[in-house]
Amino acid sequence: MKSEKDLKQYSIRTDLLVDVFDINQQEEGIVSKVEEYDDIKVLEVSITKEENKLHKKKGRYVTISYQDVTDKVNAKNLEKVVIAELKKIFAYLEIQEKQKCLVVGLGNRKATPDALGPKTVEQILATRYLYEIEQIQVDPNYRNVATFIPGVTGDTGIESSDIILGIIDQIKPDFVIVIDALASSSMDRINKTIQITDSGIHPGSGVYNNRKELSYETLHIPVISIGVPTVIEAFVLVSDTIQYLLKHFSYNKETYHKNKLIPVTMRDYLEHTNELSKEEKTRLLGELGNLEEEEIKELIFEVLTPIGYNMMVTPKEIDFVIEKTSEVLALAINKSLHKNFDI
Amino acid sequence: MKSEKDLKQYSIRTDLLVDVFDINQQEEGIVSKVEEYDDIKVLEVSITKEENKLHKKKGRYVTISYQDVTDKVNAKNLEKVVIAELKKIFAYLEIQEKQKCLVVGLGNRKATPDALGPKTVEQILATRYLYEIEQIQVDPNYRNVATFIPGVTGDTGIESSDIILGIIDQIKPDFVIVIDALASSSMDRINKTIQITDSGIHPGSGVYNNRKELSYETLHIPVISIGVPTVIEAFVLVSDTIQYLLKHFSYNKETYHKNKLIPVTMRDYLEHTNELSKEEKTRLLGELGNLEEEEIKELIFEVLTPIGYNMMVTPKEIDFVIEKTSEVLALAINKSLHKNFDI
Amino acid sequence: MKSEKDLKQYSIRTDLLVDVFDINQQEEGIVSKVEEYDDIKVLEVSITKEENKLHKKKGRYVTISYQDVTDKVNAKNLEKVVIAELKKIFAYLEIQEKQKCLVVGLGNRKATPDALGPKTVEQILATRYLYEIEQIQVDPNYRNVATFIPGVTGDTGIESSDIILGIIDQIKPDFVIVIDALASSSMDRINKTIQITDSGIHPGSGVYNNRKELSYETLHIPVISIGVPTVIEAFVLVSDTIQYLLKHFSYNKETYHKNKLIPVTMRDYLEHTNELSKEEKTRLLGELGNLEEEEIKELIFEVLTPIGYNMMVTPKEIDFVIEKTSEVLALAINKSLHKNFDI
Amino acid sequence: MKSEKDLKQYSIRTDLLVDVFDINQQEEGIVSKVEEYDDIKVLEVSITKEENKLHKKKGRYVTISYQDVTDKVNAKNLEKVVIAELKKIFAYLEIQEKQKCLVVGLGNRKATPDALGPKTVEQILATRYLYEIEQIQVDPNYRNVATFIPGVTGDTGIESSDIILGIIDQIKPDFVIVIDALASSSMDRINKTIQITDSGIHPGSGVYNNRKELSYETLHIPVISIGVPTVIEAFVLVSDTIQYLLKHFSYNKETYHKNKLIPVTMRDYLEHTNELSKEEKTRLLGELGNLEEEEIKELIFEVLTPIGYNMMVTPKEIDFVIEKTSEVLALAINKSLHKNFDI
Repeated sequence: MKSEKDLKQYSIRTDLLVDVFDINQQEEGIVSKVEEYDDIKVLEVSITKEENKLHKKKGRYVTISYQDVTDKVNAKNLEKVVIAELKKIFAYLEIQEKQKCLVVGLGNRKATPDALGPKTVEQILATRYLYEIEQIQVDPNYRNVATFIPGVTGDTGIESSDIILGIIDQIKPDFVIVIDALASSSMDRINKTIQITDSGIHPGSGVYNNRKELSYETLHIPVISIGVPTVIEAFVLVSDTIQYLLKHFSYNKETYHKNKLIPVTMRDYLEHTNELSKEEKTRLLGELGNLEEEEIKELIFEVLTPIGYNMMVTPKEIDFVIEKTSEVLALAINKSLHKNFDI
Repeated sequence: MKSEKDLKQYSIRTDLLVDVFDINQQEEGIVSKVEEYDDIKVLEVSITKEENKLHKKKGRYVTISYQDVTDKVNAKNLEKVVIAELKKIFAYLEIQEKQKCLVVGLGNRKATPDALGPKTVEQILATRYLYEIEQIQVDPNYRNVATFIPGVTGDTGIESSDIILGIIDQIKPDFVIVIDALASSSMDRINKTIQITDSGIHPGSGVYNNRKELSYETLHIPVISIGVPTVIEAFVLVSDTIQYLLKHFSYNKETYHKNKLIPVTMRDYLEHTNELSKEEKTRLLGELGNLEEEEIKELIFEVLTPIGYNMMVTPKEIDFVIEKTSEVLALAINKSLHKNFDI
Repeated sequence: MKSEKDLKQYSIRTDLLVDVFDINQQEEGIVSKVEEYDDIKVLEVSITKEENKLHKKKGRYVTISYQDVTDKVNAKNLEKVVIAELKKIFAYLEIQEKQKCLVVGLGNRKATPDALGPKTVEQILATRYLYEIEQIQVDPNYRNVATFIPGVTGDTGIESSDIILGIIDQIKPDFVIVIDALASSSMDRINKTIQITDSGIHPGSGVYNNRKELSYETLHIPVISIGVPTVIEAFVLVSDTIQYLLKHFSYNKETYHKNKLIPVTMRDYLEHTNELSKEEKTRLLGELGNLEEEEIKELIFEVLTPIGYNMMVTPKEIDFVIEKTSEVLALAINKSLHKNFDI
Repeated sequence: MKSEKDLKQYSIRTDLLVDVFDINQQEEGIVSKVEEYDDIKVLEVSITKEENKLHKKKGRYVTISYQDVTDKVNAKNLEKVVIAELKKIFAYLEIQEKQKCLVVGLGNRKATPDALGPKTVEQILATRYLYEIEQIQVDPNYRNVATFIPGVTGDTGIESSDIILGIIDQIKPDFVIVIDALASSSMDRINKTIQITDSGIHPGSGVYNNRKELSYETLHIPVISIGVPTVIEAFVLVSDTIQYLLKHFSYNKETYHKNKLIPVTMRDYLEHTNELSKEEKTRLLGELGNLEEEEIKELIFEVLTPIGYNMMVTPKEIDFVIEKTSEVLALAINKSLHKNFDI
């Protein structure tokens, strides 16, 4: 089939650290820690070396993993964890109470899975004009906050990074928070992961453009980006499904003699490790069965891309999930920025 | 793997006749005809026997196949073909100029790929209140038209068919046009097919509910439904991709010695017939390679459904495509219904 | 100017009882009561005689008067009062916990001041399909509720009352709640009044059409309508302003010698009673100054209507006020209908 | 009543030249010309002296007056006139075919009468990213155009002028077009006037803030602003109505003996000149009747403002009018900017 060399030509890009990070592999310059709050897991990874095996920029990466956000109780718990993590990152970056924030929502308001940024930012309390325009006395428990939704290049003809740089230049915030919907390289993480990082962002990088970076290095102010994977590309779905297919065979083989009355939960299945032998895999899936996961991804990418079929995959209830996720994020950001927001 | 018996348990449902129709297979009680207008192909199938191999209801099924609707020229040509086909079906159903029409847009306004019905109906010129409410003299070149968007059961708690039946009962139209977004069982047809049929519709049937039918049999007035496939389910994407994978191997094998400078167009590839032998298929994909297309679909469905991953697949530019498709449909319906719409 | 006879030809229509009710005038068949909860005043009027001086239908009219709903504390207090009043009216109408409700939002989603009904209903939890369609076991602390937004006749060509009657006929609820934005005949009440009544509603009556009534008499089930005045017509603004002009002169005359340092609050001014003599009024406003308030309204209506200038008047921040009012109403209705909504 | 001195304290601000311009008054440094195209009137005024009686900035002011834009024929004619006037102003400002344009839509998308700018700009074809980002060969008949919708300060906390300056600084267009909804000082002009000027704009000036100017002087590139009056403030409505009241009395007096069968059109009435004597005015409206138009405006402003009732007045069908006006403007701008837009 494909030579090793061919396989390396295409390198799958993803904005999620967890898509490439393996907690069991130790590496110099990378420190990690996991905490759990009931159902919610927080993985904190610090990358301190510019050159690292993950090909990720230096910085802190906080990955919050959670279950269904459309459940009220889950949403409330998630909100608390996000607030706690935002406050930690503010402390780490030495952001002061009086410092001015610009909150930016990237993405396309008109395309449901990409609307997370705009929808979140619409709910952020902007106070800057009270501070600077009307020169009134503002309650100091409300921070000086401006918000912005740059829209998409296809509509405006302008790169988001240019718009954001232009505004930063005019209003000179002390730090920036950017919210964006991401593509994931795994079905398991869609709408179940929030990544918070201070390592900067390339607006629009999800569509493989080499655009301008927004980061401490380029702006000289902290840039906190909050990303949620809301779609996967078709090639990811197909290659993930091939893995599930192997799990399916393996799971059924093993559980064949077990009592059929014990209900199989989704988790049993997902957490099952595929135990098929090389021979079994070859019998079932031929050469395909013996490719590495990454090789399958690249093969499928190569099959779908030239025919224009590398489509976008989302859960059926995506509009409701985006609504609820944006509510959690907006509440968490508002409460982290404004001391008195709650009252 | 799976026995023949298991495979038959699940029968894939689709609302598109072309998903199950093969023009090369003759069958009693089914008459078909194909016409081409440049890029646009119109397949007309009449099913005259209630019991038929396609398991489809009696009626006329017009399937219009076209290329990219976001191109202005294509859109204009498509509009003309849709108008012609609507007028033919009006003539066939003996719909008179003075007869009153109700146009219904099914689907969820908030979920982009499902918004086709509501978006189309928003652009239909409703004149009924001029005729019946305000009792003024109406230009007879404008038909008496009412429109309605019932919304989705998840929001209203009411089945669309109940809402529509209630309204028909109150306003007593002479015929009904229903516009709906459909799921397709093939990636090739998404946003490239319009089906017009007089065989009736089951609102909401796309989500596997056994709901009330809207048809001539139940309403005693003609029901014309216009459907456009705008999504596929994940299992279709995966099983289609497996077919492309085989084509990919076969195509590459054959074209290996050809001049690499000849550009491969998407069509060359899609229209290529997979010529792999049974042995080659087994070598490449193992037992999977020797399953029939339909068997693969069922297997993948069985793998994805229990883990809740049978997601929805759409093209990336879906919001723009839906906008343009709804414009074409609305113009075609307006011009078919109202003689003077254009002027 | 105008003769008494002319003045009677036009009779100003309003849907608010308080526009025509004077608490100081006793009348047989009309019983009233006022309660106050801090800033919020609740006037309850029962009309028990079909023929009455107010030209209002028999029934209970609850009028809740409040201040700025965009203030969080006010909104919370208002929500509590609305819940209490809804529960009282449910008890009075002997509505049982198991009884099924249909909640209808009248008005035009696209015109901000008229969007109150649709915006409120979008936030109501509809559960009916759980009860009736999917036949699952529903938590009995959630009532069987369906919702509906009929849209406007100009868009659909169908009268709202026809749509609602059709749906009631299909789904057979035990009672109906209708939410609508109203026109007021006084600037003081815009976005500061909620009227709840069981006397029925004429959808669309705000635009002077004589449409079908939805009421206990026509439907044989209780109909509770909730109305909020969100606009006034231009003629009301002009005639109210003429009254303010007189107050302005009177107030300035009286306060002329008072200490100018005492700040004049809006309330001082609004609650000031015009004490000008007939001579003063004539000097200031000529014959106009000696017309009764109602006569001025009719005169202005007569001046503006033929030139097409009887426009719509709203506060500048109307979109924000409608958003907040719809949130209060939706929370109050959800909590009144569903015992466990809060939890 | 009020002394001359008091009356001068408040000076009504308006962005429309026609609100202050009288074609019959000659003045040095001001040149004007009127052209008519059927129903559409174009007034072109050039102000060449910085110090002028109109207190307007130097520049060209083109005022297009038209009738109901919701009529298809009117809309088409208006579009042609707007294209012609835009092309004239491009020629006058020596704008070249290859020069890059930024089109900005000011105003609040969520408040119907203020949504004209955003709604127009959403329909402008932005091509800049084709030119500058993806470095492909662009058809030279499409100009390099970027678009932007800055939103409102209340939402973002940032002044529109800051956002626009920031973007101009980043993308360096050769000229700017700004579209905005305006307040008018006369009911007669609402949704019936388009003003095009090269004299610059103060974003947000409609709400009496002294914001940063966008003009040739500040940006060193041409700034063309297109404004349409879509609202009036309440005090304008009231004072205009008092004038109509006088016209009403005068008109009725004069036409009293005429044949009542001749229908009175709106125009007869509006164009009627009030011929009442000073005595008649005093009898009818007292001292009010003898105030100048401007004095009445100021008096009403003074009455309504302290009680928070200087509301916003719009026609009832405002959402439809805004939709149609934005379509005309967008088509005219697209066709003026892009040579091949039409094809």
